[in-house]
Amino acid sequence: MRILGIDPGLRNLGWGVIESQDGRLSHIANGVCHPAGESLAARLVSLHEQLTAVLDRFAPTAAAVEQTFVNRDGAGTLKLGQARGVALLVPAQAGLEVGEYAPNAVKKAVVGVGHADKRQIGHMVRLQLPGAEIAGADAADALAVALCHAHHLGGAGRLAAAVAKARA
Amino acid sequence: MRILGIDPGLRNLGWGVIESQDGRLSHIANGVCHPAGESLAARLVSLHEQLTAVLDRFAPTAAAVEQTFVNRDGAGTLKLGQARGVALLVPAQAGLEVGEYAPNAVKKAVVGVGHADKRQIGHMVRLQLPGAEIAGADAADALAVALCHAHHLGGAGRLAAAVAKARA
Repeated sequence: MRILGIDPGLRNLGWGVIESQDGRLSHIANGVCHPAGESLAARLVSLHEQLTAVLDRFAPTAAAVEQTFVNRDGAGTLKLGQARGVALLVPAQAGLEVGEYAPNAVKKAVVGVGHADKRQIGHMVRLQLPGAEIAGADAADALAVALCHAHHLGGAGRLAAAVAKARA
Repeated sequence: MRILGIDPGLRNLGWGVIESQDGRLSHIANGVCHPAGESLAARLVSLHEQLTAVLDRFAPTAAAVEQTFVNRDGAGTLKLGQARGVALLVPAQAGLEVGEYAPNAVKKAVVGVGHADKRQIGHMVRLQLPGAEIAGADAADALAVALCHAHHLGGAGRLAAAVAKARA
């Protein structure tokens, strides 16, 4: 299974692709989309194009997007929501189911605790994906989302296998 | 010029198309998109498809989207932001520039004051577009956005003409 993780943002959208095979995880690619354009609508089109190119190039079979942190800054939340809408749209248009994880769930899956800082996340992502060259903090966050989704799907797979075995 | 107005929303996205020719405005069509799907990503895909179908069918040459009211409900703002991202994306993907207007600017353009309620907006939209059958309050709001954009473009056109005449 090939998993795309996305850390949504309107200026920097991080993405990371990992492969999960027989419980082994490996790094495929990662990067950051920088939407271009003067108007908001143009930047959303640019984001859609760049993210669609990532899907076309790496052909993931599963995807997950980090749930946005909702804060008191309404204008900031709205901007992030607009970018997140496109981040959810693109993999769903490619026919993928899109998982969603809260930042704390991602941290807990990757670092083991829900209150890790960005440096710890980057460190643990590098440990779990040795040899990966990571394009910055947003790309590391996106790889963490992909790892979280892999753990979640793996756990669900193990559960399904256990249930199937018990029923046999 | 054929103008598409959009009142964004994740449950109900209102749209309206008007024609502006030599300062005369007429109604073309209006409606409400109801995105279907269990997940947020699936609903955004449904919204994208429905809105793309409106663009394909009525071929507008200009578009405008209402600016979302940012309130203290962060989760609600985020949801609306995600729908608004798709609402801005679709006309921009069709090559249109997308205008944005605050709710008060729309009300002022259509009703004459910035604090009109929904009933007044519907009433004034019907007066300005006689004979239009309107599919509900969200569609009326969308037609109001289109009327606002028509006034704005008309005003800009008159200004440009006046400037050109003064320079001649």
